[in-house]
Amino acid sequence: MSNNKPYVRLDRDNAVVLLVDHQAGLLSLVRDIEPDRFKNNVLALADAAKFFNLPTILTTSFETGPNGPLMPELKALFPDAPYIARPGQINAWDNEDFVKAIKATGKKQLIIAGVVTEVCVAFPALSAIEEGFEVFVVGDASGTFNELTRDAAWRRMEAAGAQMMTWFGVACELHRDWRNDIEGLGALCANHIPDYRNLMTAYNSLQAK
Amino acid sequence: MSNNKPYVRLDRDNAVVLLVDHQAGLLSLVRDIEPDRFKNNVLALADAAKFFNLPTILTTSFETGPNGPLMPELKALFPDAPYIARPGQINAWDNEDFVKAIKATGKKQLIIAGVVTEVCVAFPALSAIEEGFEVFVVGDASGTFNELTRDAAWRRMEAAGAQMMTWFGVACELHRDWRNDIEGLGALCANHIPDYRNLMTAYNSLQAK
Amino acid sequence: MSNNKPYVRLDRDNAVVLLVDHQAGLLSLVRDIEPDRFKNNVLALADAAKFFNLPTILTTSFETGPNGPLMPELKALFPDAPYIARPGQINAWDNEDFVKAIKATGKKQLIIAGVVTEVCVAFPALSAIEEGFEVFVVGDASGTFNELTRDAAWRRMEAAGAQMMTWFGVACELHRDWRNDIEGLGALCANHIPDYRNLMTAYNSLQAK
Amino acid sequence: MSNNKPYVRLDRDNAVVLLVDHQAGLLSLVRDIEPDRFKNNVLALADAAKFFNLPTILTTSFETGPNGPLMPELKALFPDAPYIARPGQINAWDNEDFVKAIKATGKKQLIIAGVVTEVCVAFPALSAIEEGFEVFVVGDASGTFNELTRDAAWRRMEAAGAQMMTWFGVACELHRDWRNDIEGLGALCANHIPDYRNLMTAYNSLQAK
Amino acid sequence: MSNNKPYVRLDRDNAVVLLVDHQAGLLSLVRDIEPDRFKNNVLALADAAKFFNLPTILTTSFETGPNGPLMPELKALFPDAPYIARPGQINAWDNEDFVKAIKATGKKQLIIAGVVTEVCVAFPALSAIEEGFEVFVVGDASGTFNELTRDAAWRRMEAAGAQMMTWFGVACELHRDWRNDIEGLGALCANHIPDYRNLMTAYNSLQAK
Amino acid sequence: MSNNKPYVRLDRDNAVVLLVDHQAGLLSLVRDIEPDRFKNNVLALADAAKFFNLPTILTTSFETGPNGPLMPELKALFPDAPYIARPGQINAWDNEDFVKAIKATGKKQLIIAGVVTEVCVAFPALSAIEEGFEVFVVGDASGTFNELTRDAAWRRMEAAGAQMMTWFGVACELHRDWRNDIEGLGALCANHIPDYRNLMTAYNSLQAK
Amino acid sequence: MSNNKPYVRLDRDNAVVLLVDHQAGLLSLVRDIEPDRFKNNVLALADAAKFFNLPTILTTSFETGPNGPLMPELKALFPDAPYIARPGQINAWDNEDFVKAIKATGKKQLIIAGVVTEVCVAFPALSAIEEGFEVFVVGDASGTFNELTRDAAWRRMEAAGAQMMTWFGVACELHRDWRNDIEGLGALCANHIPDYRNLMTAYNSLQAK
Amino acid sequence: MSNNKPYVRLDRDNAVVLLVDHQAGLLSLVRDIEPDRFKNNVLALADAAKFFNLPTILTTSFETGPNGPLMPELKALFPDAPYIARPGQINAWDNEDFVKAIKATGKKQLIIAGVVTEVCVAFPALSAIEEGFEVFVVGDASGTFNELTRDAAWRRMEAAGAQMMTWFGVACELHRDWRNDIEGLGALCANHIPDYRNLMTAYNSLQAK
Repeated sequence: MSNNKPYVRLDRDNAVVLLVDHQAGLLSLVRDIEPDRFKNNVLALADAAKFFNLPTILTTSFETGPNGPLMPELKALFPDAPYIARPGQINAWDNEDFVKAIKATGKKQLIIAGVVTEVCVAFPALSAIEEGFEVFVVGDASGTFNELTRDAAWRRMEAAGAQMMTWFGVACELHRDWRNDIEGLGALCANHIPDYRNLMTAYNSLQAK
Repeated sequence: MSNNKPYVRLDRDNAVVLLVDHQAGLLSLVRDIEPDRFKNNVLALADAAKFFNLPTILTTSFETGPNGPLMPELKALFPDAPYIARPGQINAWDNEDFVKAIKATGKKQLIIAGVVTEVCVAFPALSAIEEGFEVFVVGDASGTFNELTRDAAWRRMEAAGAQMMTWFGVACELHRDWRNDIEGLGALCANHIPDYRNLMTAYNSLQAK
Repeated sequence: MSNNKPYVRLDRDNAVVLLVDHQAGLLSLVRDIEPDRFKNNVLALADAAKFFNLPTILTTSFETGPNGPLMPELKALFPDAPYIARPGQINAWDNEDFVKAIKATGKKQLIIAGVVTEVCVAFPALSAIEEGFEVFVVGDASGTFNELTRDAAWRRMEAAGAQMMTWFGVACELHRDWRNDIEGLGALCANHIPDYRNLMTAYNSLQAK
Repeated sequence: MSNNKPYVRLDRDNAVVLLVDHQAGLLSLVRDIEPDRFKNNVLALADAAKFFNLPTILTTSFETGPNGPLMPELKALFPDAPYIARPGQINAWDNEDFVKAIKATGKKQLIIAGVVTEVCVAFPALSAIEEGFEVFVVGDASGTFNELTRDAAWRRMEAAGAQMMTWFGVACELHRDWRNDIEGLGALCANHIPDYRNLMTAYNSLQAK
Repeated sequence: MSNNKPYVRLDRDNAVVLLVDHQAGLLSLVRDIEPDRFKNNVLALADAAKFFNLPTILTTSFETGPNGPLMPELKALFPDAPYIARPGQINAWDNEDFVKAIKATGKKQLIIAGVVTEVCVAFPALSAIEEGFEVFVVGDASGTFNELTRDAAWRRMEAAGAQMMTWFGVACELHRDWRNDIEGLGALCANHIPDYRNLMTAYNSLQAK
Repeated sequence: MSNNKPYVRLDRDNAVVLLVDHQAGLLSLVRDIEPDRFKNNVLALADAAKFFNLPTILTTSFETGPNGPLMPELKALFPDAPYIARPGQINAWDNEDFVKAIKATGKKQLIIAGVVTEVCVAFPALSAIEEGFEVFVVGDASGTFNELTRDAAWRRMEAAGAQMMTWFGVACELHRDWRNDIEGLGALCANHIPDYRNLMTAYNSLQAK
Repeated sequence: MSNNKPYVRLDRDNAVVLLVDHQAGLLSLVRDIEPDRFKNNVLALADAAKFFNLPTILTTSFETGPNGPLMPELKALFPDAPYIARPGQINAWDNEDFVKAIKATGKKQLIIAGVVTEVCVAFPALSAIEEGFEVFVVGDASGTFNELTRDAAWRRMEAAGAQMMTWFGVACELHRDWRNDIEGLGALCANHIPDYRNLMTAYNSLQAK
Repeated sequence: MSNNKPYVRLDRDNAVVLLVDHQAGLLSLVRDIEPDRFKNNVLALADAAKFFNLPTILTTSFETGPNGPLMPELKALFPDAPYIARPGQINAWDNEDFVKAIKATGKKQLIIAGVVTEVCVAFPALSAIEEGFEVFVVGDASGTFNELTRDAAWRRMEAAGAQMMTWFGVACELHRDWRNDIEGLGALCANHIPDYRNLMTAYNSLQAK
């Protein structure tokens, strides 16, 4: 029996990050992850994108209506990123500018997160898979109404071939080796994993003696 | 590696909605979703079927016995829909009239929900897949005894090729673009997502100034 | 041993309902009760207040700011109720108009609900107890950040002598006897308890034969 | 400091059991305890009442309407018990026949269970305490809509002086000493505690060798 | 795209039931399903096997040691069934008598349940699939240490091609049509689904008028 | 207002430990705490009793029957402790030898744990309070059927004046000051709190450099 | 009946904040609140203390050992606060310097939070109550091993007269009226309640038009 | 239809155990399994590896930094095992010495556990599958931040062909037949499954008579 399935592994030279509809209004719909944790997860993914210098694309849906504006922190982190305020397409992939921006990067791996998971994440993920992209869903930086809804969304994307991940797994798979930048990855962890910050605080305190 | 799996996407011109056994007695068996939410989910799916003008088929099992009559709201919403009161078949697909009603629509995509999930939804879903239909299960408008039972039912349908969805994902995938009817989709959301109604209330209040 | 503690029982001739800060923005903070249920609970309490003709007082906090406007359904149900838009007082009892409106009713029993529980409900509840009112907290029509927060709020109010209740208990204690208005109480239940509506649907269907 | 509070202990010569509104329709409202367990708890309490020969009083609310008939098992177990089908009083204590039946027993300890907890149990419990009875609430043979509601109901009764118990605690406190009837209590446990039945099965099997 | 996957459907003429290691001692290890429910599920499956006259095979592991004797109810229900007390094989399929007993039935569909899920159920399920049997796992009549363990066991069996089901789904799929025996299936439901018994009690009461 | 309630504080010179019915059979009934944790909690309390040299009294109920023998670890830890195998009394306080053993110590503070909480712990706790003892219940070294049952038991004991504690709180309140025996308390923590052991492992490793 | 219990209300002119043992090592023991939320709660309380200019006292237990150093954020926020590194006393109130620091403030209301709740918070809370202080426990800025442990700790403190609160309730009760500093309280909320920040982001965006 | 998928079964002559990064610091990050249980699971797997004499390989990541040293118990159990302290590679498979150590065993089945699941377990698992190894993940001896993260990690490994197991399933599949060493397997169970120890205690006690 040959079970040797290739490891489709994130490659920092071939990946682009898509942040879909993390808007102030829509965030109030997210109830499968508690708000302190969810906010942290989204910012952790954004910080990781920055740290690895990955091309990052922002998009929003009707940001002048009840859905509200993009999280200001994301705007501030990626001032020069392509920013597609979609005029109506629910599936971001139905927006030509969004797809063009992705294709312009020349990358084949899409790291995607958004709100809500079963729509804003799943639809473009399924479209991208159909076009041959490798899709990595950041499950903990994507949110939706409740756990049942999340479960359905994850199953649909997984069945289509998307890889389910979380921000920390994405960061570690991109980084490969601590020696590439020990302090950089350490800071990313300390800023977004309270338990890890505690470990570092204790460690540094003992080292200082 | 070619992972480019086609995106089997809901198409409002090719879809039919099947509402199976949402009967007053059977609803008391549903305990994997709390009752306020479940009632809302079923009515949201029904409203979506109406909004998108999808052919809709109603069916019940032994409605003159303990299973009880169909939810009156569904009868009222679809007064002219095919209504198959099955004389005994547990799997609705074993009832010729039900299958005929589906085939008469000429549609190839089945959006299905019902009570209880592992029987009234799963059995016709598996039969339909065998006959080549594309099956989309509305997981949150389907209910059953508990989470373990739901999990088993979802796994069996998913393994057979059904796509697991929820009412909101179905509505968004059918709608494609807000511009097709902004107020219509907005009303559907406001009526069935309390958090979304809050967003609209706040937005409208500020706009009115 | 004499344990015969008096039963401080709700009396429809001596009770007033206080709805505190059920505002569109603040509602997005409520995460100890899921939104479909919470919306239903608040409207059930409001319908009960209406059904029993209880004097009802509405108040809001900074409704022109991020807290947002009062739920429109409440405004619509009580168009002539005292409505105190507080200019800044966090504890509604610190607002003279609010207390005056209560005292003007001449009632000694306060039925109170609001958002968030540990502030907008607990503060006036504690103030009212100090002034000798009998306070009945409607716990399921009051919401807050999470279960830990709710637990703390309930303990503090209970320790001060507030009675913890829910909307259905309030309605039943006020009604005393089904014969006072069978259809009225039946409608209240059917509109706000999906399982009870199912019972009535099944019952009516069998009676009709 | 004198903390020596008297132990208000169940006494089989001074206790009466009140089963309030365990009706087929109302049982569908119970969602704070899963149905297999709840049915078992109610029957366990009934079996205990029988085993200890306690006077037992049955009452129902509108049993010819949607609330439905009393659980047939209870009728069958107590064919000669006072049975008060209340014509409308929500609080059973407001029904003179019910109170008379209790007082006719001459007992001062009331063991009470019912559906739903915050109404059918709490109201008569509070009334009885006011009249000087010692009230023992069987919390796991009483059911209601959800855990929040149960929590409110328990707090209110406890604050008034009711003792919160469960059927097993009641049975053990009444029995006092296994030697009063080893086989009797053993059978009660084996019939209603699956884990205890397993212990007895294993034990008997080894003893038989 | 051809998604028309055949529906591998339970057939009462081609199915055999395997009850593996439901022993008094091992049952104390089951903590992923609460004991009242689990006992009910196992007996429901056994009653269904009896009702459909399916050949049923019992097996135990070391029943004279700490694992304890088979649940007496199962012995009593199937006095003439093949009963293989395995002398040591953990995977029942490693026991020749067990496999012979299965093959002697000539059936190709195996309905399997047992304790603990990841060992006593999963191992023979995987062996049977390898030999070409169609395997239907009764997930709610199988128990194990906790939910994480159950999840792992279910995933492994599902990945190998087992179909995950529950006792009610099995019974309904075998029965096909209520008209085959309305009272028989009704009794099975009433005896093992408390909510269904309530529906029947209420229905019968109203019919009797 | 004078709220200055005296702090009833554990005093190692005035406390005795009562371990009630931690028997092999009865332990299988404990389902409100998972088994790895519960076993650890019971042994932690026992080790604390040993560490503080507190007089300790063991008692069992019908240990030659299905309830099974005392946990062997407890027997081994306290070979010379009073050991009362009760011939039938369910409430250990009804057994004269048990009460005599307690009174023989001359201590006024009782630290009590057992299985099951609402019977084997609550009954003697209530009896002891009536006689003027100060009762400290070790809630996490006591177990019962489920969380509802535990909640009822805790409320009843608390209402009577028992103080609810856990093994770690008991140990810390007895120890008062780390300097009384740093290594002793450290070992107790490391042996029974995995997270604390990790802290010590990391600390010692860094200190060793 | 006179139920008019005085409202013991936080007063910014009479309150002091005690932060007990929020140390890097001990924080790894906290498992009743998830880490992102817990860290946020502790910093929110600290920011509130700062905002209201409350005297604040820091204390640690063995900070050079495995318990680890104080959270650096707390040190940074309160550089001039009394800082008592206890040499061994588990109950901070047993340390004279700690009590002196409190008494030096002349305040009678203690707002206390710490790790772990049942020891580092409960012990000084009980001691302070005995001395006549009014104690307000910040339950969500205090953490411990699990929910059972928290429940026991809360019950013990509540029974002694402590008031259970959370950081947001504390802040609102201290502030009294938004008009005292709208922007200040708004910033506190926005920085520590992600849902509130979303409301402000959406509001500001609409206002800016 | 041919569903006869081969059973990829653990074989004690062809399996190696990989324990990845069970380090004192990293263990504080594990929050999807409670600490008493997790510690037990890891030691159970280690004891099983020892019992079956499987070659075992230990590896750590930055053990001199905040991640901390390997659990001392593992070091002590496998003093002569290959021990690869990785200088920086996050995926252990990127470390040549680690892969060499595995290949030197000549085994084709990898039993892997570690901390955290989605990184330290998933990455080498995916790499090993790509190279044709059969991978068995010990899910309950692997830990991570929370259940959502675990779910994502399990899905990714499962989709790639890893088999999800738990320590008890691994031990039973390796052992095959109790008669290979009844006492050995019995001891493994008794030491790591408290319920099983109770069964043995009760059994031995009765046998001794």
